[in-house]
Amino acid sequence: MRKGKISPAVIRRLPRYYRHLDDLFKAGVVRISSSALAGNMGLTASQIRQDLSCFGGFGQQGYGYNVERLRGEIAEILGMDRDHTVVVLGVGNLGRALLENFPFTRYGFRLEAAFEVDQTLVGSKLGGVQIYHYDEMERFLRTSPADVGVLTVPGSAAARTAKRLAACGVRGIWNFTNVELPESELPGVQVENIHFADSLLTLSYFISEEQP
Amino acid sequence: MRKGKISPAVIRRLPRYYRHLDDLFKAGVVRISSSALAGNMGLTASQIRQDLSCFGGFGQQGYGYNVERLRGEIAEILGMDRDHTVVVLGVGNLGRALLENFPFTRYGFRLEAAFEVDQTLVGSKLGGVQIYHYDEMERFLRTSPADVGVLTVPGSAAARTAKRLAACGVRGIWNFTNVELPESELPGVQVENIHFADSLLTLSYFISEEQP
Repeated sequence: MRKGKISPAVIRRLPRYYRHLDDLFKAGVVRISSSALAGNMGLTASQIRQDLSCFGGFGQQGYGYNVERLRGEIAEILGMDRDHTVVVLGVGNLGRALLENFPFTRYGFRLEAAFEVDQTLVGSKLGGVQIYHYDEMERFLRTSPADVGVLTVPGSAAARTAKRLAACGVRGIWNFTNVELPESELPGVQVENIHFADSLLTLSYFISEEQP
Repeated sequence: MRKGKISPAVIRRLPRYYRHLDDLFKAGVVRISSSALAGNMGLTASQIRQDLSCFGGFGQQGYGYNVERLRGEIAEILGMDRDHTVVVLGVGNLGRALLENFPFTRYGFRLEAAFEVDQTLVGSKLGGVQIYHYDEMERFLRTSPADVGVLTVPGSAAARTAKRLAACGVRGIWNFTNVELPESELPGVQVENIHFADSLLTLSYFISEEQP
C-alpha cells in the first residue's frame, strides 16, 4: 500500500501532520477524531481522511486515530527511522545557526561534520560538530559517506559545491543558498530548497494586496 | 484586471518568476519566449502562459515576453515597490544571519531595528541595524510603525511575541520559529512560515523512498 503514488502536495503536508501528532502525543492525547485534528491544523476533516487514506488508513469511522500509532507510521513513512547522516557546507551565520540550534536528531538525522574555508574556524567545533577545511570534503566523505549535504555556502559557490557533493555520493541536498541548483547536473540527487526570498516576497504580496 | 482571484499556487510561483526574470535581465536578455522561460524554470510553456495570463497577459503569441517589463510588472504585483518596513525580533544566530546577510532592500524591504533580550547585544549594531532591548518594541513601534516583524526568537517566546507585534499594528509576520502561531489571535496579520523541519522531513521522505 503506502508509498508509490502519493501526490507531492500530500507529501508536503506529512511533516505538519507529524508535528501536530507529536505535540498531541506529548500533551498526553491518546486518540483524536479527524475533525478535531482538522480544527487543530486549519484543514477540513474530509481532507485529513483523504490524505491519511493514501497510506492505508489508520482511522476507524467514528473512532478516530490512535495518536501514537499514527505519529509512528508517519515518522516511518518520512524515513525518520533511517538514521540519515548529514554534513554542513559553509559555516557562516546560517551554517552556525543550524549547527548550534537545529535539532537534527529529533528528525532522524545525525550530524557528522561541517566544512568551511575560513581557517579561523577549521579545527574547532560548533554544536559538538567538528569543522574541517572545505577541501577535505572529498576525503572525509570517501570514508564516511553522508546521505545529505546542507548547503549554506555563499551563492557564488552553490553550484560547484553541489556538484562536488553529488560526486561524493550524497543523495540529498538541503539548499539554503537562494540559488537554483543545476539539477540536470546532479543525477540521483534530491534537492530541497529553502528560498528565503520567495517566502518574503509571498508575504509582501499578501500585505500589499490589503492596502491598494 | 490583475489581482483579486489569483490562486495561492500561482502567487507562490511569482517570486520564482521574478528571480528568473531578474537573472535574465541582468544577463542582458531583452525578450524571451514562454518555451525558453519554461525550460529555464522546469515548467511547461503552457503553464507559464496560463500563470501570466492571470495578470492580464504580457506576452504576444509568437513574440515572447519583454523581460524588463514583465519583471517590473511582477515586482509591482508582489509589492516590491511599497518600501515595506521590517523589524527583527531575536538576534540569535538566525537573526544575525538575516541582519548581516539577507538582502532585504533588494526585495523592497527597509530594515528599521532589531530587538533582543541579551543585554550584551542591546545598544550595538549588526548589518548597520540598531539593536534595542526586546521590551522597547512597543515604544519603538509606536513612533516608527513596521509592516513586518521577523520572528527569530526561541520557540517558547514565539506566540507571545507574535501577539505583541500584532498589537503594535504589524501586518505581516515572517515566522522562522518552527512553531505554529495562533492565527486566530492575530487578526489582520498575515503569517508566512519558514519551517526548516518540514523541509528537511520532505527531503527525508524522498531520499528514503529511493532505498527501501
